[in-house]
Amino acid sequence: MISKNEIKLIRSLNRKKYRDEVGFFVVEGEKSVEEALRSGLEVIKVFLSSEIGEEAMSRITLLSSPSPVLALVRKPAAPETSQIADLITSRPLSLALDSLRDPGNLGTIIRLADWFGIENIFASHDTVDCFNPKVVQASMGSIFRTKIIYCNLLQIASEFRTAGMPVFGTFLDGKSIYEENLSTGGLIVMGSESNGISPALESIVTHRLSIPSFSPSSDSAPDSLNVAIATAIICSEFRRR
Amino acid sequence: MISKNEIKLIRSLNRKKYRDEVGFFVVEGEKSVEEALRSGLEVIKVFLSSEIGEEAMSRITLLSSPSPVLALVRKPAAPETSQIADLITSRPLSLALDSLRDPGNLGTIIRLADWFGIENIFASHDTVDCFNPKVVQASMGSIFRTKIIYCNLLQIASEFRTAGMPVFGTFLDGKSIYEENLSTGGLIVMGSESNGISPALESIVTHRLSIPSFSPSSDSAPDSLNVAIATAIICSEFRRR
Repeated sequence: MISKNEIKLIRSLNRKKYRDEVGFFVVEGEKSVEEALRSGLEVIKVFLSSEIGEEAMSRITLLSSPSPVLALVRKPAAPETSQIADLITSRPLSLALDSLRDPGNLGTIIRLADWFGIENIFASHDTVDCFNPKVVQASMGSIFRTKIIYCNLLQIASEFRTAGMPVFGTFLDGKSIYEENLSTGGLIVMGSESNGISPALESIVTHRLSIPSFSPSSDSAPDSLNVAIATAIICSEFRRR
Repeated sequence: MISKNEIKLIRSLNRKKYRDEVGFFVVEGEKSVEEALRSGLEVIKVFLSSEIGEEAMSRITLLSSPSPVLALVRKPAAPETSQIADLITSRPLSLALDSLRDPGNLGTIIRLADWFGIENIFASHDTVDCFNPKVVQASMGSIFRTKIIYCNLLQIASEFRTAGMPVFGTFLDGKSIYEENLSTGGLIVMGSESNGISPALESIVTHRLSIPSFSPSSDSAPDSLNVAIATAIICSEFRRR
């Protein structure tokens, strides 16, 4: 069974404002709900269409088509400053996302970061919320295995440099990713598709990278790659070495 | 100005059935329309919101948010069998997409194929139509520089083999893409995320590849990568060598 108040609550969680207020987010789909249950996060309630009916499920789904299962999950606490400092001390390979607005791209990046064993994703405050239902869906459960830390990227990038670690960024005029020396630790900054990396952040980058195009004629070549695609190619290059 | 009949026509082109019947498709966004005009395809008419008004534009857009420009374009003719045979003779590196249903993924793959100089994409008949408005949008103009050929993939893969060229496919138990010998020509078969490569097509594959996961623990690793992400990593590996 599902009450009117529960329907209202779940539907409100489509908006970040209410997710922040209530502290819950919505997980849909069998695989993702299974991962939520294994994650250690508090699962408030699970709704099955076999119990509440398909009509009720179609009223609470936040996706374009409902799945047979939907869970209400408590958001994890944001990490404290001291925890972030500890993260950097362990010299990991991490991602930094500057103003990424598209939920599908963020979810896809979380999934591929998980695949490539990149546990920490730093995101600027204006990056889309990782508990947005479309992000959760596109991450295919990887959101439960990856830390997404909303923060001031200038500060984080400076801390990586202070710790003696490289800060990589992708630019059209960077050095070919296939030829540059890459390291096992450091920060990889990805800019938004429309605006690239912000100038202040660019000034902290130590290694300018680019993904060469193999298009036969330069005047008819595409301008750029989708940001999730570029992130995948770069992570693959870092890890294969 | 825009007539009622034009509005009705454009809105009908959201469906493949009507695109096939009329022979037109819709292109939205400044960059994509610019590419359409340069492509050599017949542009039937261009609508600007500065001329027809934003209200009319919001009625004809096939996307979630309207852009200031929309063009009605005639679909190119499908290539003939003899042209396909000629394509294979030139021994290109080509993609084959088996039952790809998501329009965003197809558009993203067209864009990255263009980036990596892969001119031919063979698609099974049940792959989403490349003139679907969401595919056109995600391709960011690359649809005008890439040949997408709907065909029987079994036949195409057999023709590549008959011509003495390798047929690559990705599988969970394949050989690491980072270690396998890759060639400058051949067919790369990508399966759908839910079903992978069909068994009949699998039997024609000559080289089984996989993208290794770097996730620290195998029991909590993600099952797979998004198909556009996997395609990007594979194309990057083929081209960098």
